[in-house]
Amino acid sequence: MPRLKLTIEYDGGPFVGWQRQTNGRSVQQAIEEAFVKLTGETVTLRGAGRTDAGVHALAQVAHVDVAGSWTGDKLRDGLNAHLRPEPAAVLRAESVPADFDARFSAIRRHYLYRLLTRRAPPALQRGRVWHVKRRLDAVAMQRAARRLIGTHDFTTFRSVECQAKSPVKTLDALNVVLRDDEIAVTATARSFLHNQVRSLVGSLKLVGEGKWNADDLEAALNARDRAACGPVAPAEGLYLIRVDYPSA
Amino acid sequence: MPRLKLTIEYDGGPFVGWQRQTNGRSVQQAIEEAFVKLTGETVTLRGAGRTDAGVHALAQVAHVDVAGSWTGDKLRDGLNAHLRPEPAAVLRAESVPADFDARFSAIRRHYLYRLLTRRAPPALQRGRVWHVKRRLDAVAMQRAARRLIGTHDFTTFRSVECQAKSPVKTLDALNVVLRDDEIAVTATARSFLHNQVRSLVGSLKLVGEGKWNADDLEAALNARDRAACGPVAPAEGLYLIRVDYPSA
Repeated sequence: MPRLKLTIEYDGGPFVGWQRQTNGRSVQQAIEEAFVKLTGETVTLRGAGRTDAGVHALAQVAHVDVAGSWTGDKLRDGLNAHLRPEPAAVLRAESVPADFDARFSAIRRHYLYRLLTRRAPPALQRGRVWHVKRRLDAVAMQRAARRLIGTHDFTTFRSVECQAKSPVKTLDALNVVLRDDEIAVTATARSFLHNQVRSLVGSLKLVGEGKWNADDLEAALNARDRAACGPVAPAEGLYLIRVDYPSA
Repeated sequence: MPRLKLTIEYDGGPFVGWQRQTNGRSVQQAIEEAFVKLTGETVTLRGAGRTDAGVHALAQVAHVDVAGSWTGDKLRDGLNAHLRPEPAAVLRAESVPADFDARFSAIRRHYLYRLLTRRAPPALQRGRVWHVKRRLDAVAMQRAARRLIGTHDFTTFRSVECQAKSPVKTLDALNVVLRDDEIAVTATARSFLHNQVRSLVGSLKLVGEGKWNADDLEAALNARDRAACGPVAPAEGLYLIRVDYPSA
C-alpha cells in the first residue's frame, strides 16, 4: 500500500491532544474519520509527536498507508472538506517511501512557546498564548537558557508520566526572543521528553521574574529531580512548528 | 470631568462592529456596559475609527469622560475584569487634555489586511485572515499598489454607504509583503473612506491573480466609479493596528 506523509495544522484548544483517547476527541481521530468518509478505508495515522491537550501545531507530521490510488493534492483537499468545521487542516499530502516513519525517521523537532507579557488579557490571542501579567526580563531568560543547551539528563524537566526509556536528551537550541509585549521561546531537539518544553518554559519564567538566576536554573537541571522544576507552563502557549527528516 | 484615552484590542468576529447598532452587540456597547458595572456611570465612548462587523483591532483608540477619580491602571484592570469573557481588552487607559478627541485629533490611521494564500483552509487563523486558495503574485501587487499612493478621488474604492463629505483622500503608504504563505497589506492615511481598505485589497487581489495589471488598477481609480472596483475583500482579514496623534 502506498505510504503518504501528511503535514497538519491544528488549534489544540478543542482537542484532547494528538493521540486517540477514550476521554474525548483527538486530532488523530478527527483525521482518521475524515479518511473513512473520503475513501471508505479505516486507516491508522502515526504522528511525529504526541502533542498534549490544548497544544497547537503549525506542522505536525503523520504517515498513513492508503489502499486507493490518490494524488496527494486530491487527498489533501478531500480530507479538508470532511474535516470542516473542525480546526484542523491537512497542509500537504505527499508520497513517501514505505520505510518513512513520521516518528522514527524524524531527525529534529521544533517547538515554539508564546508568552504574552502585559496586564491586559489577550483578546485576539486567547487560547494561543500564556498570559503572564507582567514584563519579564527576556535577556536574563536568554542568558540562562544557554545553560540548558547540549546533552543532559533532563529528569527535572520531565513529566512523571513520561515513557521515554532514558531521561538523557540533546537540546540543540533554546532561544528567547522579545518582540513588543510577546516573548517567543523556541526549542529544537531530535526528540523531547514528555512536558519538557513546558517544564523548561515554566522555569525560564521564574528567571524572567527575577525569582531565579541562571545558576538556579542550572542547579535545577543538575538536581535531576522533578521536584526542582518550576511550575509547568500551560499547554495553550505551545506549538509544534516543524519536524525535520533527512532529505531524500 | 477628566478625559481618558483608551487603547483597545478586540476580535471583531462576535461583534456587529465598533459602533453601537440596534442589530447586535458592538464593542462600544460592551465597554460602555463594563463602565457602568465598574463605576456606576453611564458614559459614551468616541472611537477613532468605526470598524465594521468582523473587523479586528490591535489598537483602536477611544476617548471618554469619567466623573470619578480613577488612575488609568485601575480603570484598565477594572474594565477588563468586567469585559471577561468577551474578546475585547483595554490595553491602556491614560489621562489626556480635555481637547483630545480620538477621532478628530488623529493624524494617521494604520490598517493591516491579511491574506492566507494556500489550498488548505486556516485551522489556527480562522476568522483572522482572508483565505485565498492559490498563490498570488505579491510583487505585481506591490508594484500596482504604488499607483494608488498620494491624493486621489477614491470614489471607486468607497462604499456606497460612505458618509464622508469628500471622496478625496491622501494615501500615505500601501505596502504588500509576502511571508511564507501569507500576504500582508498595510495601509496608512490620515483618514479612510468607508470600506476603502477592503476595496483596495479586493482589487489588488485581482492583480495578484493576473486578472488585472497595474494599468487596470489605475484605470479603475481614474474611473471614479464604484462599479469599476473589484469584489470587496471580506471583513475578517482586516485589522486597525494603530492610530497616531500629535505628540503632546
